[in-house]
Amino acid sequence: MNIESLNHLLQQVQSGAASIEQALEKLKHLPFEETGCAHIDHHRTLRCGMPEVIFCPGKTTDQIVDIFSRLAAQGNNVLATRADENTFQALKAKLPDVQFETAARAIILRQEEDKPKVGHIALVTAGTGDIPVAEEARVTADLMNQNVQTIYDVGVAGLHRLLSHSREIQNANVVIAVAGMEGALASVIGGMVAVPVIAVPTSIGYGASFGGIAPLLTMLNSCAAGVSVVNIDNGFAAGYIAAIINNQTTGDNK
Amino acid sequence: MNIESLNHLLQQVQSGAASIEQALEKLKHLPFEETGCAHIDHHRTLRCGMPEVIFCPGKTTDQIVDIFSRLAAQGNNVLATRADENTFQALKAKLPDVQFETAARAIILRQEEDKPKVGHIALVTAGTGDIPVAEEARVTADLMNQNVQTIYDVGVAGLHRLLSHSREIQNANVVIAVAGMEGALASVIGGMVAVPVIAVPTSIGYGASFGGIAPLLTMLNSCAAGVSVVNIDNGFAAGYIAAIINNQTTGDNK
Amino acid sequence: MNIESLNHLLQQVQSGAASIEQALEKLKHLPFEETGCAHIDHHRTLRCGMPEVIFCPGKTTDQIVDIFSRLAAQGNNVLATRADENTFQALKAKLPDVQFETAARAIILRQEEDKPKVGHIALVTAGTGDIPVAEEARVTADLMNQNVQTIYDVGVAGLHRLLSHSREIQNANVVIAVAGMEGALASVIGGMVAVPVIAVPTSIGYGASFGGIAPLLTMLNSCAAGVSVVNIDNGFAAGYIAAIINNQTTGDNK
Amino acid sequence: MNIESLNHLLQQVQSGAASIEQALEKLKHLPFEETGCAHIDHHRTLRCGMPEVIFCPGKTTDQIVDIFSRLAAQGNNVLATRADENTFQALKAKLPDVQFETAARAIILRQEEDKPKVGHIALVTAGTGDIPVAEEARVTADLMNQNVQTIYDVGVAGLHRLLSHSREIQNANVVIAVAGMEGALASVIGGMVAVPVIAVPTSIGYGASFGGIAPLLTMLNSCAAGVSVVNIDNGFAAGYIAAIINNQTTGDNK
Amino acid sequence: MNIESLNHLLQQVQSGAASIEQALEKLKHLPFEETGCAHIDHHRTLRCGMPEVIFCPGKTTDQIVDIFSRLAAQGNNVLATRADENTFQALKAKLPDVQFETAARAIILRQEEDKPKVGHIALVTAGTGDIPVAEEARVTADLMNQNVQTIYDVGVAGLHRLLSHSREIQNANVVIAVAGMEGALASVIGGMVAVPVIAVPTSIGYGASFGGIAPLLTMLNSCAAGVSVVNIDNGFAAGYIAAIINNQTTGDNK
Amino acid sequence: MNIESLNHLLQQVQSGAASIEQALEKLKHLPFEETGCAHIDHHRTLRCGMPEVIFCPGKTTDQIVDIFSRLAAQGNNVLATRADENTFQALKAKLPDVQFETAARAIILRQEEDKPKVGHIALVTAGTGDIPVAEEARVTADLMNQNVQTIYDVGVAGLHRLLSHSREIQNANVVIAVAGMEGALASVIGGMVAVPVIAVPTSIGYGASFGGIAPLLTMLNSCAAGVSVVNIDNGFAAGYIAAIINNQTTGDNK
Amino acid sequence: MNIESLNHLLQQVQSGAASIEQALEKLKHLPFEETGCAHIDHHRTLRCGMPEVIFCPGKTTDQIVDIFSRLAAQGNNVLATRADENTFQALKAKLPDVQFETAARAIILRQEEDKPKVGHIALVTAGTGDIPVAEEARVTADLMNQNVQTIYDVGVAGLHRLLSHSREIQNANVVIAVAGMEGALASVIGGMVAVPVIAVPTSIGYGASFGGIAPLLTMLNSCAAGVSVVNIDNGFAAGYIAAIINNQTTGDNK
Amino acid sequence: MNIESLNHLLQQVQSGAASIEQALEKLKHLPFEETGCAHIDHHRTLRCGMPEVIFCPGKTTDQIVDIFSRLAAQGNNVLATRADENTFQALKAKLPDVQFETAARAIILRQEEDKPKVGHIALVTAGTGDIPVAEEARVTADLMNQNVQTIYDVGVAGLHRLLSHSREIQNANVVIAVAGMEGALASVIGGMVAVPVIAVPTSIGYGASFGGIAPLLTMLNSCAAGVSVVNIDNGFAAGYIAAIINNQTTGDNK
Repeated sequence: MNIESLNHLLQQVQSGAASIEQALEKLKHLPFEETGCAHIDHHRTLRCGMPEVIFCPGKTTDQIVDIFSRLAAQGNNVLATRADENTFQALKAKLPDVQFETAARAIILRQEEDKPKVGHIALVTAGTGDIPVAEEARVTADLMNQNVQTIYDVGVAGLHRLLSHSREIQNANVVIAVAGMEGALASVIGGMVAVPVIAVPTSIGYGASFGGIAPLLTMLNSCAAGVSVVNIDNGFAAGYIAAIINNQTTGDNK
Repeated sequence: MNIESLNHLLQQVQSGAASIEQALEKLKHLPFEETGCAHIDHHRTLRCGMPEVIFCPGKTTDQIVDIFSRLAAQGNNVLATRADENTFQALKAKLPDVQFETAARAIILRQEEDKPKVGHIALVTAGTGDIPVAEEARVTADLMNQNVQTIYDVGVAGLHRLLSHSREIQNANVVIAVAGMEGALASVIGGMVAVPVIAVPTSIGYGASFGGIAPLLTMLNSCAAGVSVVNIDNGFAAGYIAAIINNQTTGDNK
Repeated sequence: MNIESLNHLLQQVQSGAASIEQALEKLKHLPFEETGCAHIDHHRTLRCGMPEVIFCPGKTTDQIVDIFSRLAAQGNNVLATRADENTFQALKAKLPDVQFETAARAIILRQEEDKPKVGHIALVTAGTGDIPVAEEARVTADLMNQNVQTIYDVGVAGLHRLLSHSREIQNANVVIAVAGMEGALASVIGGMVAVPVIAVPTSIGYGASFGGIAPLLTMLNSCAAGVSVVNIDNGFAAGYIAAIINNQTTGDNK
Repeated sequence: MNIESLNHLLQQVQSGAASIEQALEKLKHLPFEETGCAHIDHHRTLRCGMPEVIFCPGKTTDQIVDIFSRLAAQGNNVLATRADENTFQALKAKLPDVQFETAARAIILRQEEDKPKVGHIALVTAGTGDIPVAEEARVTADLMNQNVQTIYDVGVAGLHRLLSHSREIQNANVVIAVAGMEGALASVIGGMVAVPVIAVPTSIGYGASFGGIAPLLTMLNSCAAGVSVVNIDNGFAAGYIAAIINNQTTGDNK
Repeated sequence: MNIESLNHLLQQVQSGAASIEQALEKLKHLPFEETGCAHIDHHRTLRCGMPEVIFCPGKTTDQIVDIFSRLAAQGNNVLATRADENTFQALKAKLPDVQFETAARAIILRQEEDKPKVGHIALVTAGTGDIPVAEEARVTADLMNQNVQTIYDVGVAGLHRLLSHSREIQNANVVIAVAGMEGALASVIGGMVAVPVIAVPTSIGYGASFGGIAPLLTMLNSCAAGVSVVNIDNGFAAGYIAAIINNQTTGDNK
Repeated sequence: MNIESLNHLLQQVQSGAASIEQALEKLKHLPFEETGCAHIDHHRTLRCGMPEVIFCPGKTTDQIVDIFSRLAAQGNNVLATRADENTFQALKAKLPDVQFETAARAIILRQEEDKPKVGHIALVTAGTGDIPVAEEARVTADLMNQNVQTIYDVGVAGLHRLLSHSREIQNANVVIAVAGMEGALASVIGGMVAVPVIAVPTSIGYGASFGGIAPLLTMLNSCAAGVSVVNIDNGFAAGYIAAIINNQTTGDNK
Repeated sequence: MNIESLNHLLQQVQSGAASIEQALEKLKHLPFEETGCAHIDHHRTLRCGMPEVIFCPGKTTDQIVDIFSRLAAQGNNVLATRADENTFQALKAKLPDVQFETAARAIILRQEEDKPKVGHIALVTAGTGDIPVAEEARVTADLMNQNVQTIYDVGVAGLHRLLSHSREIQNANVVIAVAGMEGALASVIGGMVAVPVIAVPTSIGYGASFGGIAPLLTMLNSCAAGVSVVNIDNGFAAGYIAAIINNQTTGDNK
Repeated sequence: MNIESLNHLLQQVQSGAASIEQALEKLKHLPFEETGCAHIDHHRTLRCGMPEVIFCPGKTTDQIVDIFSRLAAQGNNVLATRADENTFQALKAKLPDVQFETAARAIILRQEEDKPKVGHIALVTAGTGDIPVAEEARVTADLMNQNVQTIYDVGVAGLHRLLSHSREIQNANVVIAVAGMEGALASVIGGMVAVPVIAVPTSIGYGASFGGIAPLLTMLNSCAAGVSVVNIDNGFAAGYIAAIINNQTTGDNK
């Protein structure tokens, strides 16, 4: 769907030739922009509640700059994950307002106005080494206009650290539990709350953690029923899912 | 927490020695009933929004009947999953009101009053063989007072079948996607909606599906961001999570 | 070492040609009895603190009866694990004093006098389904003259159940933690105590528990330092190790 | 088969001592050239429709230059895959007409005349990161005289991108589907077409994609029947198979 | 798309209200029949060249009979794979013309007229134990009007057996190679021919064949370029793919 | 090679048109017998030193009887492995001289004359449960005219049992080490001898032995250099390899 | 538990409002120090017998220096594992008394007075390459005031090397067995002693050792009953567990 | 066994108090040299037919130089595998006669006199990339006084290359088959010869070869009975085993 077809559609709406509902339906299913190497999905915001996000590994810097710029041109907030300093510098040369979230390895561009925030997401890690993954979740949710309360390094080997934060965890609308090694944090939190727990296994550990397989299996087998799991180290998905759940809960997506 | 300590706590509330809030806090963390073989967690309803659920495999029939009866005595709805006909007959002899959901392999006892239902969960399967797992999710959510719309056998090898139901999928507050074999259904649905998608891999398939590993990995690697995953064949968890999300969305958990 | 060589050695001791120490050393390393299908290790009691134990699967009933009888003839307690009713009946016909521990699937013969017991082992399971494995550990330790305190069905999804038993767990000289599904119990206990924790993963679970791989990895990756792990479902080894640790602690092995 | 034996065979044909058919049969099964480190298979063109291809990893630059040169001396097109810039420079010094296909990491030498091309191969990728593997397929097929239509970055999380190209996909004689992460693209395309789909899993992804295992399993378990699979990242095989299928379809291999 | 809507569409074509092209497009994308448990895809014949096939495991007998009957009502040939005798008897009671292919474990119903057959598929197995999988491929291709030449038990441990059939293998338009254990057959055949080789790993073997993983990996890593692979034991897919390739080659799909 | 061609070849030998050497060479590579389901490799005795052996699983009883009978008709000893009682009875009805080796699950037919035996094979197992696999090796080697000394149940947990047999192990020309569970036996023996050790992992064990993967990996990683490994439970291959090594050592294969 | 609350508690003890026992109980469960990135668990010494240990990978140098300094401020010995030279230099600049144990890759700070040592731990490795892991165990136990006797490079391929040290191994109160490759050392030692054996698989090896999976499985499947296992390369846990067992045995933990 | 005990033993031999046979037996089991980090096994030559070999990875250069020098001091040939240039230079500085076999990554020191060689080993690789592993086998066997005939790059995708060498393969006393990717070479050779085939899987390949797992499984599952397997990339073990088999065959070990 290029500018002309969009123009035509809107004229139809204005003239009454198409109803709002018909136009919305069309916009929900069709438009994207074709570049040499990519089909950029501009209306994902409409369909899925968030613009397309750029996963950097496997893409050349030129490809990233090109896709990022086109997304930025739509006026939305833009997010690139697993980015490095070089890519950031290349982007900054073209888009001076981009920011680099070092701990999260994310490049962001804020272009949307902040809305009042309702409710909060509790973001918990088992160890200090899990923080980069948690930060990717935090940056994602933050860009989606969320309150995030971070509670880092409260693994189950010292339960009192976790229990001392039980109030802010139990009051959240959704909890993100980030843990490597044995990943038991998600189960323990799952047994403490009545809200969804998004579990993120991390690749922190060694030996029989097998790059995150151990906490992944732990979380999938959780004996606490409210736990669902995303890919190893996938802070972005956790932040995104938590944001849409909190939005629903607080009526923010209506 | 035994009868005496409960008695004491309530006297404190009556006399004003303890506030309601203090009592609630204590009740939230302590009571359970110890039998020979089990510690039954009676106040999970308070803490997690649903009573303890009985996973039958590995338990003797006597153990199941004992635990089920004690849970029933609390007046809540009760659910036993992965049950068989023999266990059902043994339970029915003691609790005549239990019902056997054959397709879901679940035994249920309804004791709570129905409340008006708001919003709906879309429950989608890729094939006919995935139905037993989906039914476990449906029974669970139904017991938690949810509207569930089932859309079965709409796998991605015939996209038109899925797309013909896009309206009821997109209008749900949460979607459950159940699929075995290659498990692509979750990704395709994830790209269609702005709400959380709970993906359930099933052990349907053969050869390189490795008892559900193939769809599990597919779903964990979903390129659609809103997808989180539960254990292979874990219809119960999917139904439970979907129910608490829909409850939050519709304000039903306030 | 046959009767002749044993005779010869003892004559040497009597005559002073060999010291007690020399004879003990020899006895510690040599004797076994050769049957058609087995080399029975009669002096394992001397060397390792417990007689040889019969692992039944893969052996014919005749082989089990033959080996069991020869071990019994030495006057020690005898243990056969993973046994079934048929094997028990065949043994009982020959050795009327054998007993069948149904839950543990173990056949035992008590022939040694009870000694006073000092200290205790805490034996904890996450669920009801883990009990058969725990019972194998209990029977083993019991046969080795131990106090065992069992605390069953206190998994981490309801922490208060576990914490209500913290005193008897923290006072034990060694703890056995038995858990399937996600196996988080061992880490949580490991963070509560200053004594060794022997973790036993069980094959209880389904899907991504992969027959016990999930709790095995969880336990190996425990962030609590005092946890070591035995094979999936290996209650026997856990009971044996706990017994020798408690014996050492209480000076019982001097 | 060295020069002498080839000479002898042809003289037999000239003299009538051997029939054409006999000579062809011999040529089809015997000749290769032995170097120090390799047995170069010069008549693979006759037997399999394409000259031997050089897979660079594990070979020294000297070995690659030597083998490439000997293949070039036969007058066919030559292809070296997984090549790097250094190898290319070493080859260019000896064979100035070689070209480096950067995105595909392939070195090619075109020596055969172009023939008119009939029909086309549709080459589809799920993401931008999958392009290097797709380019290896494209270069291979192109060197085998094929029309290739590339449709990149149309993964299933935005179905409209894929569906907007349905006509050129459905009109192809064979489709190559290249995807990493969850690899669902192959199944969706398999359900859209009546021609063979060659699926190529890629190692693009992280965590539970396990270096391409996730899309490999997805594709092997495809619920669409026309899908067959090659090794992870094996763009070459996909291009080769697609070329021989399209050649057969269009009568080009007669 | 039911009879009425099909009628209406064809009337539009007759009257000129819809072009042939428009009608074809519609027929290609829309119709299916919704039963209680299934969405039957009646026009898969148009879109993919073959009717939907019933994979029996995980379906109840009633479900199979219901789906089979509805497919049969369209007048096409019908195929149910992995079927057992009981299912066959239930079907035969309703549709007396169904046949049971015992070795292939397939139920078929022939309703389409035979067309003259052109070209042939070579179907090769390594051992006698691989025959059931090969037979599933043979029945599938046969139902799709193909000539299939079977060459069974010619594994690579006795190369002369395979080489004695080299002529009929090299003259085929496509080869299916079925092998368990080490699965080397596909590579050896791949080096002999210039046509596509569809490799089918089987679960025949024991120990380190891991239910077919060993031949699966062998085939995926084939050093012969023309080999692509389907799921373990998936004779159906191999037969289907071979049929559409042979059809294309011989112009039979125009 | 049919009767005619064999006739022709032998006439050439008689007339001097072909030398014995040429005829032997031809006979070594060509003959086999084609039945409906199998290509029986009758001259494997010439080429590989032993007739084809029948692996029973996956074959129907009729197929086994048919193949066994044709092999028997050649006058060699015949061996069928992984056989059951039913197959034995069916064979015995046709070939009354067949014998069933119960422990080895093997059917044998002795038709060749015994030759004097030179040297011996030491066949060692770690446990009693490993005996069936060892017996398959013993029966195989015995049928190939070997002396086999069996030393069963001497696993490394009681080293003195193994060391008491060190003389007969060190004097063997080749050792077969059969072990399940942790499979350490092969390494310990490998460090004791200067002859080849054929290691056979068995599926005896449970939990993390993963059906024989644990001893398989142990044996492959042996720190003793003379150890090579065959498939899990593959007693036949071990017996066969040990036999050809002992034959070579003793000059018996000249 | 901050300074104020600690102050309050001690005042209560002083005044008699709280007993020593009550205060100890509270101190055992609550205090930790919250920094920006970590919850430092200061009273782990009380609860688990050793201060929190810093696992360096995944933490920034600043984070390590910060946590180490806070732990040092409590006056206990401090240990950081998997450290590198850079981190050591950064720490030394702030805490001049830290030492770097090169072979063990550990940074230590000794602040506690030495107590008389009783009994000993035997620390055994199979090869020279296993020494770094063993040294991590040695440094840990040494910091916990233990006698450690090291016996390195005595793998089972030369049993006499191990047997020559049997006396010091059999006299230990606990044995640590460190081995890579096939890991058979633990089983052999397990059969020699009556005390607990802590087995540490290492990642030394290649190919089918799969980064330590082979020795891990060997050790988990040990046929000697006294063996329990820690994570691959986890020398720290082995040293810690051995120390608490030896402490218990010698009455040092009373 | 220290100097004194060795002295004593030899005096006993001189005086006739011990027979040569008794002394040999003792020497066979006891002596080794203890350095700081290693127990060097000097009499492995007597016991296993070859001196201890140094596997370099995981050892420091100082350790390697120390062990190598002590082995060299015994007058035997010495071999260090997986060595690099730096280690070689450090050794050369101390032992000027060492040589570096670049392709094999091995350092050797020849000190023993050559004996006449009898028989030969055939050493076959599938590809050029497998040569480094094969060269490690060649260097090992060569150092053990063997004739080795190398046949490189004759993989099964061009069978004629392999078959053209069938005579030298069939005349060998033992064959080493080295192959990566799908590893089918071993099975094909196994079906051609009546002598033992030592199969070496290599890590050459990518994707689903999983670092050599694919050819490892292929070789373990070989349908040709004479094939046994060593660890991935373990050229040393293959060379060693082939040497002792050829020695036995030719009577060279008597």
